[in-house]
Amino acid sequence: MEGRVYNFSAGPAMLPEPVLKQAAAEMLNCGGSGMSVMEMSHRSKDFEAILDSAEADLRELMGIPQNYHVLFLQGGGCTQFAMVPMNLMRNRTADYIVSGQWSKKASAEARLFGQVNIIASSEGENFSRVPDLSNLPVSPDADYVYLCQNETIHGTTIRQIPDTKGKPLAADISSMFLSEPLDVSRYGLLFAGAQKNAGPAGVTVVIIRDDLVREDVLPGTPTMMRYKTHADTHSLYNTPPCWGIYICGLVFKWLKELGGLTAMRERNEKKAALLYQFLDRSGLFHGTVRKQDRSLMNVPFLTGDKALDDKFVAESEAAGLRNLKGHRSVGGMRASLYNAVPYEAVEKLLAFMEKFEKENG
Amino acid sequence: MEGRVYNFSAGPAMLPEPVLKQAAAEMLNCGGSGMSVMEMSHRSKDFEAILDSAEADLRELMGIPQNYHVLFLQGGGCTQFAMVPMNLMRNRTADYIVSGQWSKKASAEARLFGQVNIIASSEGENFSRVPDLSNLPVSPDADYVYLCQNETIHGTTIRQIPDTKGKPLAADISSMFLSEPLDVSRYGLLFAGAQKNAGPAGVTVVIIRDDLVREDVLPGTPTMMRYKTHADTHSLYNTPPCWGIYICGLVFKWLKELGGLTAMRERNEKKAALLYQFLDRSGLFHGTVRKQDRSLMNVPFLTGDKALDDKFVAESEAAGLRNLKGHRSVGGMRASLYNAVPYEAVEKLLAFMEKFEKENG
Repeated sequence: MEGRVYNFSAGPAMLPEPVLKQAAAEMLNCGGSGMSVMEMSHRSKDFEAILDSAEADLRELMGIPQNYHVLFLQGGGCTQFAMVPMNLMRNRTADYIVSGQWSKKASAEARLFGQVNIIASSEGENFSRVPDLSNLPVSPDADYVYLCQNETIHGTTIRQIPDTKGKPLAADISSMFLSEPLDVSRYGLLFAGAQKNAGPAGVTVVIIRDDLVREDVLPGTPTMMRYKTHADTHSLYNTPPCWGIYICGLVFKWLKELGGLTAMRERNEKKAALLYQFLDRSGLFHGTVRKQDRSLMNVPFLTGDKALDDKFVAESEAAGLRNLKGHRSVGGMRASLYNAVPYEAVEKLLAFMEKFEKENG
Repeated sequence: MEGRVYNFSAGPAMLPEPVLKQAAAEMLNCGGSGMSVMEMSHRSKDFEAILDSAEADLRELMGIPQNYHVLFLQGGGCTQFAMVPMNLMRNRTADYIVSGQWSKKASAEARLFGQVNIIASSEGENFSRVPDLSNLPVSPDADYVYLCQNETIHGTTIRQIPDTKGKPLAADISSMFLSEPLDVSRYGLLFAGAQKNAGPAGVTVVIIRDDLVREDVLPGTPTMMRYKTHADTHSLYNTPPCWGIYICGLVFKWLKELGGLTAMRERNEKKAALLYQFLDRSGLFHGTVRKQDRSLMNVPFLTGDKALDDKFVAESEAAGLRNLKGHRSVGGMRASLYNAVPYEAVEKLLAFMEKFEKENG
């Protein structure tokens, strides 16, 4: 559409245009209700239909088994960093895999609640790769093993779910949510902030196996921080983020129309391949991640010259290619290629990078 | 606008039509950014302008002194029920005024963290009035005194801020937020879920005096539950509920254009007077609250006959007057008359009630 930019933001990020158009069209009167979704009582039939259909579509897309709850919560990944230990850390011990800044942050938060063992880390390699997960020293008394499967800042993905030796696996999948199929039954708990691949900031989707939804949380866990509170009430203990759930629901329907997560993986592989292949042959730009650990969603790259990186970011912004600046903790550039970023956007980016390389290489 | 209904929901509730229209118009391209607000990086200049202007307009509307922080958080009032004690209960003691279901719920949550003294309650009168607050037995070691100034379910308002004898006052003002002027300097902490008078569900506004934003919170308080986390980062510790903040910002501008909170009080007094005067003269309907404690925002009423109440709710729905059913814990009817509910909606309601009374009285 006229005036729209190519947005490579790491999140909040691009949403599908058909979803935005439908949301605009329904703004004053959604589905014949005579009101905006933002004006609907969360206890009304109109909103319950939106919530139920969002859950049903998500279950279908991800193949979520019946013994898992789907919760629509608030507070983002950072709230989950506390909720996971508060709800699961019964022995006050957990094992963390640290493969980037987000898993590191999660492990630090968990230390508020008990003993945290870092059983694998690639911090020594500046998180440019996934650590070796082939024979994890899982602690006998660990309540769970935690990982962040796609590190948004460092651009790595854990491709092989490790053997957790019988311990439940808790995973942050925020920045790869819905980008490819996953086997939910391999996890005890999954969570994702919506603002990358599913909807607006302010919705966190939690998928949790029913045996992990328990009464015996840590003492002093607020009612709102207990998974059981939300599982027992179908995410309607209090007023949920209704608008965000509605947008997620529209995105889920868009994904189904496009062929679901297998089709999304194909699209995402094609987009990422275009960029990675260029990075591998460029004389100016290079990727920062070991090949087999590269994320399909977040592609960090550098020229190796900070001044040139800054020039690239400034000129790309002016050319309508937005939010290519790398995270402040890493520098350089980063292109996030979430589901709603079209192939054409990557083509435009490549053309711009080729031109920039000719002029500055 | 064509097809719109009159929506008396207690929340989420009616929003101003000009706000909805602007949000629809800007959905694909907000302010020349080339993207929806939902797609903007929360660290971008475009979004920071939205956040800064929302805060500035709110400060102006409410006359918030400079030594108070304004925070845009997630999780609703129920999350504040825990955050207040986790952050303020240093002596593990607090005094609660219980004037309805929401303050009762807040007091129960606070018991997870320490000693809670109920220093005034109207539960014995079914919350049909505000308890006597004239000489409160404030506990010498109380960390704060808590109240819910407008009880959404029971329809009472505390008109006189009580003397808390030097203790900070923490107040839930969710359902009267922005409906009339308040003297912020009388409070230590104020909070409001946005979904009644300010915007969509998923944003909680907290206004907190800077001496109450402290490091020494209760042990085990998650990072996201500390006011200091959000005060230090200007509500940008993690991704905030950007869309909700944007809508609140548009509502704040709409309020300013209408003359601010003094003008809103006049409008709201007129709307409420129309309904209360009818209830006082009706032979069929009656209000449930002592006159001097009646809320301008939430007006519960009954016929005294449950079958007739149900008939009223069903017929009013069919007539395009929505969400008049009372809360499930109280029964009967309730009309919520928030800022965005027009005078005309109350006139339509009265006409319907008069007709119903003639037919069923």
